[in-house]
Amino acid sequence: MSAGEDDRVREFSQFRKRMNERILAEDNQVVRRFFALDTQTYRAGALDTRTKELMGLTASMVLRCDDCIAYHVAQCKQAGVSREELFEAFSVSLVVGGSIVIPHLRRAVDFLDQLEAGQAEGAAEPPGHGH
Amino acid sequence: MSAGEDDRVREFSQFRKRMNERILAEDNQVVRRFFALDTQTYRAGALDTRTKELMGLTASMVLRCDDCIAYHVAQCKQAGVSREELFEAFSVSLVVGGSIVIPHLRRAVDFLDQLEAGQAEGAAEPPGHGH
Amino acid sequence: MSAGEDDRVREFSQFRKRMNERILAEDNQVVRRFFALDTQTYRAGALDTRTKELMGLTASMVLRCDDCIAYHVAQCKQAGVSREELFEAFSVSLVVGGSIVIPHLRRAVDFLDQLEAGQAEGAAEPPGHGH
Amino acid sequence: MSAGEDDRVREFSQFRKRMNERILAEDNQVVRRFFALDTQTYRAGALDTRTKELMGLTASMVLRCDDCIAYHVAQCKQAGVSREELFEAFSVSLVVGGSIVIPHLRRAVDFLDQLEAGQAEGAAEPPGHGH
Amino acid sequence: MSAGEDDRVREFSQFRKRMNERILAEDNQVVRRFFALDTQTYRAGALDTRTKELMGLTASMVLRCDDCIAYHVAQCKQAGVSREELFEAFSVSLVVGGSIVIPHLRRAVDFLDQLEAGQAEGAAEPPGHGH
Amino acid sequence: MSAGEDDRVREFSQFRKRMNERILAEDNQVVRRFFALDTQTYRAGALDTRTKELMGLTASMVLRCDDCIAYHVAQCKQAGVSREELFEAFSVSLVVGGSIVIPHLRRAVDFLDQLEAGQAEGAAEPPGHGH
Repeated sequence: MSAGEDDRVREFSQFRKRMNERILAEDNQVVRRFFALDTQTYRAGALDTRTKELMGLTASMVLRCDDCIAYHVAQCKQAGVSREELFEAFSVSLVVGGSIVIPHLRRAVDFLDQLEAGQAEGAAEPPGHGH
Repeated sequence: MSAGEDDRVREFSQFRKRMNERILAEDNQVVRRFFALDTQTYRAGALDTRTKELMGLTASMVLRCDDCIAYHVAQCKQAGVSREELFEAFSVSLVVGGSIVIPHLRRAVDFLDQLEAGQAEGAAEPPGHGH
Repeated sequence: MSAGEDDRVREFSQFRKRMNERILAEDNQVVRRFFALDTQTYRAGALDTRTKELMGLTASMVLRCDDCIAYHVAQCKQAGVSREELFEAFSVSLVVGGSIVIPHLRRAVDFLDQLEAGQAEGAAEPPGHGH
Repeated sequence: MSAGEDDRVREFSQFRKRMNERILAEDNQVVRRFFALDTQTYRAGALDTRTKELMGLTASMVLRCDDCIAYHVAQCKQAGVSREELFEAFSVSLVVGGSIVIPHLRRAVDFLDQLEAGQAEGAAEPPGHGH
Repeated sequence: MSAGEDDRVREFSQFRKRMNERILAEDNQVVRRFFALDTQTYRAGALDTRTKELMGLTASMVLRCDDCIAYHVAQCKQAGVSREELFEAFSVSLVVGGSIVIPHLRRAVDFLDQLEAGQAEGAAEPPGHGH
Repeated sequence: MSAGEDDRVREFSQFRKRMNERILAEDNQVVRRFFALDTQTYRAGALDTRTKELMGLTASMVLRCDDCIAYHVAQCKQAGVSREELFEAFSVSLVVGGSIVIPHLRRAVDFLDQLEAGQAEGAAEPPGHGH
């Protein structure tokens, strides 16, 4: 990973953190409750977090949301999902969602490569409001 | 399940079977290969079929495709996914996809209820081209 | 409105009510909280219910969800939105969402015609979980 | 084609015609202009109508709008597009849009089969506002 | 607002202006008429501009179009919509469209913060073809 | 075209090439087969490549995928599609997909302008996995 790429990942992460704080500081109960519900959704229940994160990743890919994909790829890695398993999740997303998923697949693999290259920092990132 | 509901499930199943045969009888290699690839996608690999079907279900729900949802609910049941686990998959889909998923959730639960009421026949249905 | 059309509106309304009860009877807190949040969203705040329902209608049209459109058309009528105003909401949805909105527009106008023809019953319908 | 299927095609066609008249009778200039623009879009220019209808069909398939697909399949047939060519348009839509297009493909092929079985009437249908 | 952020808003605004001119200079009547219709859509009628802009904003958020969101946020501000009211529009969009709206919400709030910090220039921007 | 714009086109092209290689180097047969099928889809058959590329372009525009749009605009140029014809494809996409297509139209026209300004290099680019 080049220094430039490293900066971009950090910049995105800081932007997400800063804006989440701005949004939750606003006096809007529906928005706050939605963020809390989003966090609750991926907690282990009948299904474990690993399976839920894989489902969140697939949903994000077919809906073509790069930030959501990056978030769930990172969460999957933390939950112990292997690169081979991630590619199987990518393959389901690709077949369900079609070739328009390809540009997002490229960015997902690029993000995954960066995570694997600098995993120490990634693992240290505090958990928080997703997407 | 009323006799009318039973008929509707059978009618849909027959329509899907009949049209898949019509489509695959056509001399179009891209379409045929896509159907074959679709079947291959859910075979056990690094991830088991159960997890892949749950991902297929979530993708179908956020993309709001009733026929795809019904297909994956049936496949999940065959792979041993419990009602409680299915509802957790529904909850991920609902939070990722928003309230526009609700009408599809209603139809998914209705279909699940019908499957559970008449499961013997459902289990006897031959596997085949999905969605 | 023909007797057949009247039946179809009633049938849809009963299906929605029955399935909402099935869904909320399930022990899944995320789904229940989402339904509660959905109801809370349209309560008057800085914006009145009328404006929020018009926004819900427009969002439903561009996302092409017939059940959601029918629900918000009915809610708009109850909040005092006129036919002329509804058509302006339709026009915004049509221009933002494009010609693929047209089939949903046809069904929305058909539903609106039915509501106006038999408004007494519509108004008597109990409020509840939306979409 | 069974009598029942024939009736369904006629019923859909009459509903479309009746609702288009209702919509255009309303005093909303934006909606009327949009309908006029929609008709103008497919007129021969630098590209012939045949190519434009194929593009309209592909766009309708990847956006998964059954009514729009049926309309453009009928228009393509009138413009002399062969079944083999239609299947190539279907194959592009399938690969771009993914397996969620499959249920719409099934209904498109069913509609095409019906058109080919009773083509005389189809050809006699007056041109009009699309989708 | 940092100088860098200020530059990015200006750069986007100039790109939009320059490309709109390129597009309208082209001899394509359908495209030109669509742009004119887009402008006409938000003019006050039975509903005021303020309500129409709020509907345009909600539609843009659930369809996840950042440029459209930025445009309608700016138009809402000009029409006198308060920050509290904008957050209620955001909350409707979030609940209807789900957690995949969150990244767009972050960028919308960031854009709103920038608008409020440098509002004098924003207000001076000439009206024009939207999205 | 400025030097900066030229760099951006080259950077995107290199990223696409590099990531496609990364993806195809992975041992995932479904993903590889999908990429092969994507390439096969646009080969001349009953319809010529030109028509298929125009359909791929329209599908990409209504699905609002900038990378896919850029790819198909370049392929259309190589297949001899004129600027006037491209604008007719844009007009179909705009009317089918609505005003949310406008930001993508702006970027498509910008990309087309850049291609026309530096066409020699564009034509020399090797064919490959699309989108």
